[in-house]
Amino acid sequence: MDGFRILEIKKSVFESNDREADLLREQLKKDRIFLLNLMSSPGSGKTSTLKRTIAALKDEFQIGVMEADIDSDVDAAAIEKTGAKVIQLHTGGMCHLDAGMTRQGLEGLGLADVNLAILENVGNLVCPAEFDTGSVKNAMILSVPEGDDKPLKYPLMFSICDVLLINKIDVLPYFDFDLEACKRYVYRLNPKMKIIPISARTGEGIEEWADWLRTETRAWIGN
Amino acid sequence: MDGFRILEIKKSVFESNDREADLLREQLKKDRIFLLNLMSSPGSGKTSTLKRTIAALKDEFQIGVMEADIDSDVDAAAIEKTGAKVIQLHTGGMCHLDAGMTRQGLEGLGLADVNLAILENVGNLVCPAEFDTGSVKNAMILSVPEGDDKPLKYPLMFSICDVLLINKIDVLPYFDFDLEACKRYVYRLNPKMKIIPISARTGEGIEEWADWLRTETRAWIGN
Repeated sequence: MDGFRILEIKKSVFESNDREADLLREQLKKDRIFLLNLMSSPGSGKTSTLKRTIAALKDEFQIGVMEADIDSDVDAAAIEKTGAKVIQLHTGGMCHLDAGMTRQGLEGLGLADVNLAILENVGNLVCPAEFDTGSVKNAMILSVPEGDDKPLKYPLMFSICDVLLINKIDVLPYFDFDLEACKRYVYRLNPKMKIIPISARTGEGIEEWADWLRTETRAWIGN
Repeated sequence: MDGFRILEIKKSVFESNDREADLLREQLKKDRIFLLNLMSSPGSGKTSTLKRTIAALKDEFQIGVMEADIDSDVDAAAIEKTGAKVIQLHTGGMCHLDAGMTRQGLEGLGLADVNLAILENVGNLVCPAEFDTGSVKNAMILSVPEGDDKPLKYPLMFSICDVLLINKIDVLPYFDFDLEACKRYVYRLNPKMKIIPISARTGEGIEEWADWLRTETRAWIGN
């Protein structure tokens, strides 16, 4: 391994992001590549969850990871150690990725040897929810220390995701987090949400999450 | 008390936010009102820190709080119980407040009986850092569960703040958070940052934080 690349993402020039996102999804379908868009607040555990996910699925899929950040490359460095293909995307201050930016990232990553691509979006519960990246599925992480009321305050993010990982479940005894109340808030916004409590630290729940991702990826790439 | 008001904030129409922010600060100076802009990720503990802050300073200042959120009024409801004057601002999906929006909030709150105004900004480490609200000082909260590497990933936010509260210090034993490393990252970006470890749950560090805010407020309002 001779290190990962850092790509400075440019602002998209497309008029309709929704149209661009649909085009990207069509191309991914044709190329048999599944794209997961992973979103959360800063510090919810996206990168450590990804490390567990890669460990669980690396023998079945060719995994490629795009680490999007305003700055720094600490996440790409962490992912590189797993042996997965990785690229660091710098958004130049932009608070989200749209489909055009995601396409730049995928081209920078290189897709010839990838069939499961994962975008770790910028840590932000607000703006990324407003832009379709062209992903096949949207996943989000809410961590226990953030509080069970977050669905009330960031409803759009909880509405547009297919799966919610409730992370840091191992520290539940130390926080006032009502898991059942949280689920109720989420289901009110999004009755179809798949909710999986996990701990990226202890590995709890990772098998169920890997099962979900395996099933979705196989269905999409036709394998 | 007959309940708090919910104000739907409109997009600002001003050409230069910096100019508008300076104008707002000048007016606040003339009116002897201190404005604190409090920022953090979702779930870092802005509201619970505010409750402690109000309890510490309510006998010395006339406190007014603006709770900005995409949606919901759970924060304003929590603050109302402290007896402080409060208004809930809904940003209609917008991920930050600029000076024009802050001015709308202050007018909605009403300033005749306020000399310490606090804006709880939208939970977001990215966008709010880019917009001067017209505040006299900027404060931010980073909580222990978010990780010590956040200054590396969200450098602008850590650069534009005057004070950093490191919250949830009571759960330090349960997380891999290197307090000294975090401070080093912060000082590299912002050598003048005042850093105060606190626990909004146990009250640890709140006195030091209240001292800082008391001193800054008195200096500004000339009291």
